[in-house]
Amino acid sequence: MHTPTTLQSLIAGRWLGTEAHQPLHSALDNQLIYHTHADRIDFGEAVTYARRTGVQALMQMDFQKRAQRLKALAAYLMERKEELYEISHLTGATRPDSWVDVEGGIGTLFAYASIGGRELPSSNVMHEGPAMALGKRGGFAGTHILVPRGGVAVHINAFNFPIWGLLEKFAPSFLAAMPCIAKPATATSYLTHAVVKMMMESELLPEGCLQLVIGSTGDLLDRLNGFDAVTFTGSADTAAKLRGNANLIRESVPFTAEADSLNAAILAPDVTPDDEELDLFVKEVAREMTGKTGQKCTAIRRVIVPGHLADVVGERLRARLAKIVVGNPKVEGVRMGALASLDQQRDVSERVEMLARGNEVLFSARDGFNPVGEGAAAGAFFAPTLLLCRNAMVNDAVHDIEAFGPVSTMMTYRDIDEALALAARGKGSLVTTLVTKDPAIAAHAVPVAAASHGRVHILDRVAAVDSTGHGSPLPMLKHGGPGRAGGGEELGGIRAVKHFLQRAAVQGSPTMLAAVTGEYVRGAAVKESDVHPFRRYFEDLEIGHSLLTHRRTVSEADIVNFGGVSGDYFYMHFDEIAAKDTQFGKRIAHGYFVLSAAAGLFVSPAPGPVLANYGLDNLRFVAPVAIGDTIRARLTCKRKVDRNRTDDQGRGQGVVAWDVQVTNQNDELVASYDILTLVQKRG
Amino acid sequence: MHTPTTLQSLIAGRWLGTEAHQPLHSALDNQLIYHTHADRIDFGEAVTYARRTGVQALMQMDFQKRAQRLKALAAYLMERKEELYEISHLTGATRPDSWVDVEGGIGTLFAYASIGGRELPSSNVMHEGPAMALGKRGGFAGTHILVPRGGVAVHINAFNFPIWGLLEKFAPSFLAAMPCIAKPATATSYLTHAVVKMMMESELLPEGCLQLVIGSTGDLLDRLNGFDAVTFTGSADTAAKLRGNANLIRESVPFTAEADSLNAAILAPDVTPDDEELDLFVKEVAREMTGKTGQKCTAIRRVIVPGHLADVVGERLRARLAKIVVGNPKVEGVRMGALASLDQQRDVSERVEMLARGNEVLFSARDGFNPVGEGAAAGAFFAPTLLLCRNAMVNDAVHDIEAFGPVSTMMTYRDIDEALALAARGKGSLVTTLVTKDPAIAAHAVPVAAASHGRVHILDRVAAVDSTGHGSPLPMLKHGGPGRAGGGEELGGIRAVKHFLQRAAVQGSPTMLAAVTGEYVRGAAVKESDVHPFRRYFEDLEIGHSLLTHRRTVSEADIVNFGGVSGDYFYMHFDEIAAKDTQFGKRIAHGYFVLSAAAGLFVSPAPGPVLANYGLDNLRFVAPVAIGDTIRARLTCKRKVDRNRTDDQGRGQGVVAWDVQVTNQNDELVASYDILTLVQKRG
Repeated sequence: MHTPTTLQSLIAGRWLGTEAHQPLHSALDNQLIYHTHADRIDFGEAVTYARRTGVQALMQMDFQKRAQRLKALAAYLMERKEELYEISHLTGATRPDSWVDVEGGIGTLFAYASIGGRELPSSNVMHEGPAMALGKRGGFAGTHILVPRGGVAVHINAFNFPIWGLLEKFAPSFLAAMPCIAKPATATSYLTHAVVKMMMESELLPEGCLQLVIGSTGDLLDRLNGFDAVTFTGSADTAAKLRGNANLIRESVPFTAEADSLNAAILAPDVTPDDEELDLFVKEVAREMTGKTGQKCTAIRRVIVPGHLADVVGERLRARLAKIVVGNPKVEGVRMGALASLDQQRDVSERVEMLARGNEVLFSARDGFNPVGEGAAAGAFFAPTLLLCRNAMVNDAVHDIEAFGPVSTMMTYRDIDEALALAARGKGSLVTTLVTKDPAIAAHAVPVAAASHGRVHILDRVAAVDSTGHGSPLPMLKHGGPGRAGGGEELGGIRAVKHFLQRAAVQGSPTMLAAVTGEYVRGAAVKESDVHPFRRYFEDLEIGHSLLTHRRTVSEADIVNFGGVSGDYFYMHFDEIAAKDTQFGKRIAHGYFVLSAAAGLFVSPAPGPVLANYGLDNLRFVAPVAIGDTIRARLTCKRKVDRNRTDDQGRGQGVVAWDVQVTNQNDELVASYDILTLVQKRG
Repeated sequence: MHTPTTLQSLIAGRWLGTEAHQPLHSALDNQLIYHTHADRIDFGEAVTYARRTGVQALMQMDFQKRAQRLKALAAYLMERKEELYEISHLTGATRPDSWVDVEGGIGTLFAYASIGGRELPSSNVMHEGPAMALGKRGGFAGTHILVPRGGVAVHINAFNFPIWGLLEKFAPSFLAAMPCIAKPATATSYLTHAVVKMMMESELLPEGCLQLVIGSTGDLLDRLNGFDAVTFTGSADTAAKLRGNANLIRESVPFTAEADSLNAAILAPDVTPDDEELDLFVKEVAREMTGKTGQKCTAIRRVIVPGHLADVVGERLRARLAKIVVGNPKVEGVRMGALASLDQQRDVSERVEMLARGNEVLFSARDGFNPVGEGAAAGAFFAPTLLLCRNAMVNDAVHDIEAFGPVSTMMTYRDIDEALALAARGKGSLVTTLVTKDPAIAAHAVPVAAASHGRVHILDRVAAVDSTGHGSPLPMLKHGGPGRAGGGEELGGIRAVKHFLQRAAVQGSPTMLAAVTGEYVRGAAVKESDVHPFRRYFEDLEIGHSLLTHRRTVSEADIVNFGGVSGDYFYMHFDEIAAKDTQFGKRIAHGYFVLSAAAGLFVSPAPGPVLANYGLDNLRFVAPVAIGDTIRARLTCKRKVDRNRTDDQGRGQGVVAWDVQVTNQNDELVASYDILTLVQKRG
């Protein structure tokens, strides 16, 4: 038995709420488990605290340090995951359902720690280059930067993933130095409450960067301005209500929604009953119908199959659904748990009734539904329910009504274009799965489906080996769809961090742009280094430290020798006759010779702080180098990123990118590139 | 004299409107010049026509072909620009004002033709890679694509730039294959009408890709859905009204606004009265106050100067403003024209009165205002007006009230942080100029200003040589600011095209992803080529055509020879003693040797269709190559772009990128990169 306790909000650094208000019940047996609190929240205080204390504390770190902090936080939570599983059980979730919420959420923190470490600078200015010249005399250039907005992120979430829902939004906004006010859906807010408690207990979070609202948002949205941001996950109706908030509209507050979605799975016409792909299709549909008791924004609601396969698919789906034991997930063998509440149960029931009108019921509670476990009769259980619609092109309901439970409608099509038209009838969805063996069908269908779906999952026997499934948003891939699905974008790797940053164009002299971006910009003043820049430790290197090398005259012998070493006897380098007919009119040196000779010009042979040249980017051979030309290189420290890393032997090191310009005797650029190195730290 | 004619709307391919409705007057002498039409527009027909005829015609082209079409259109308009200048004159614009509208607009078409040609594929699927592995067994990967949305773009524009305003939005949405319904502000819609007529006369536009609404938008917005898009430029009040449209909200229709903005210019504390920068500041402010009679969203409304320089800046500004002759721009010597209408004149007048309360007037009509030209007394002229506010930190009006004419308020600050705080009081602006000589001040101030400004323009004597100025949005740079400025983004190079496309994540086997994206994805099935792929013409090359080369054992002699040719004697390759202490524990081959030897393995020496290897991207040295290792390369056709170009001799050619993987005797990847080539066409 669970002793009912009153959940608390975390506002301006204090937990508040003592007086019980709304009762919350277990999904499994309807026992009272928690109350929300009656105590009033001062949202003015919450917003001010976030904008002052939170922003200040976050800005004292840089992108790299925040990424490291996320990693530490993820590790802390992972060690305590079992406490969260225990509470998650009360929402009606099976262990695999909870895995998505608990470990999926913590995994997203890990993923963003890694994305931040890999792609963000060790400062608070992200340069979105390259800088480009804006005039003919080299005095003026332009580029873009992304900077923290200085406002607060309000994350309003749905009841189905109380942990993942928070963490997948918290991670990118935290990286972007936005303090967060989290407002979980009340029904399962006890689970968000538990993870927020844990996050605070970790003492890993800078002050003011996280607040929690249990209950209503009151006048919170009326207090925001254009430097804040609101994200919402939930129903389209609520999304519309919030998006229409007069203050959000007047202040142009960025608003991102992820809402209702009648996702589809399409069985392509090339698949036959004997193909492994048909079973993959059936398995995926059954899994996405019943996983999390169908309470996923990404669940498959519409099962689109060729008319001639409706019977076989229906048969195999029925067989699979019949095997799924429903009940209290603590009972051995249970594969599907409860809906989140009796309210949800009622709601799903009503919608199934609406959907069933004029359609066949292929599987439902009538096929023997008897949830197992003590008190289950009082729980919010619901039978897997499969309908069949044979006239889906003229039936609006099956494309419009979402029963947010283990409910799907199968519908038939004549050809792939009709299948795609049916999928698009969802008016914008989060995800569609296409099961096909044929790359040509994928090449035709996916771009069409992509216009109305945020994600397209192509499944065949090859992909099945590794597939993460139709229903799983991944940190590296965009989550969110157009139209009915809310029109928002979440996740998608670094994109999600950029959503919470402010982009600005910057124009000025190259020297000014270099100062602002923290990156050398072509044409900016360089610092001629008294020491060879490759002999400086990471800490001693400055952006703009530069070396102009000695010169080297390229001779015919160089070309011959380079051909001998490389084995590259391309006619442009070796065939006087054919070379006459090229745009250059004569033999020229190998591009890779120029690259190699430039390295020979600027390399510093003895051991030093530069540990490795691990790559090269943006190489362009701008002009040919002919026999008799004399080249030299300018090597300039372009970018430094301190990832706070050490090597195997505990020595610190950082990433340094170098701008290389190879010029000829007329000071014309012949080759241009960036080289990437690891440079040791002094201390 | 201009004979008043009735402007027509272009709806569903037909010009309609015969009955005169609202009169439109010349800004210069208030003469009646045009009427809008009274005839009702069927917006249902307009939207259906765009979605069917327009989308279909645009999708029959690809990104590259649309880019070419934009270029042809720009050239066509440029030849006829004088007709547009003639009409533009009626809006009260000087020749330089009209240049921004007419040639700035046409220039934006040219710019997007070039951006499209450079950055977009010759298909209708834009791959936003790289693809990434999503599993351990190589069966599953993910990436992103951007595809045309299949809907219509409604572009609602302001009165100040009737041509540029249309073309800067038309260009990216046209590239994105979105048909456009243009709705210019009524007051100057005759100029948009003229350019749309010209665009249609060019016969360069696919059917249905452009419609024009003269007058009200009626129920147009109520007919849109989530696959359409709305852009708006104009007042914050109208932006709020439109953004709050119930249908746009319910359907999650993307809505981009560019609205009011009280842009600032900051004179940094390092500038002294003797510096060239002080004069640059004064000149820029005067130019941005009076250019286009101050009717620019980007005009400088707030002039932020150090307290001790207020007098000298005020003096020099007064002197400059006094020299500006106002009147009919056809009169020799006139530097500033009229406001767009008498309504605007009234509006500006009222706002100046509100702004002047409690502030000093440094320059105004009282300093001798006498617009020149016939009928000018009846025209919508307005004197340059400069106010001085000495308590700007506690004065809301100067940061809130925008007089959309030649009106600015100077305000004083104590230190740079107060200056930045004042700039941020605009609650989000399009642009701020910072005049400073000091890169350290720029490095501190610009990231702060960037949080509240869409663009930051740093001006000093170096930049001044080439600067395009505070007030000019450029196609390559983002236009739009947060908060009061509308929260939107326009332009910014390829970003603007992406705004009009739909992004989708795609997951599946590498082979499926390659089929969908039109790009080879690592792990996808390759087509072993019977012919060396470098010997195939552009048309004959297929994505996935691949060559696995013979092998080469790397010997000590190779390292010695490569050192001799390149001059690169780095210890890792040549010093047994030091090499022992590296992570590899022994001497390894030069990375550039591996690169050069790989070229030697896959090059096809005789003249052939591959005309040039002009660059290399994403080179990573993944593992070391030691003496005795045996390497080979796999070369695979990765991406083809047909830019429909020919070389000097009229031979067609395309761009081909090749994926290169160099592996060792254990099939471990040692180096990975893309090489970029030009490949000749057969025909």
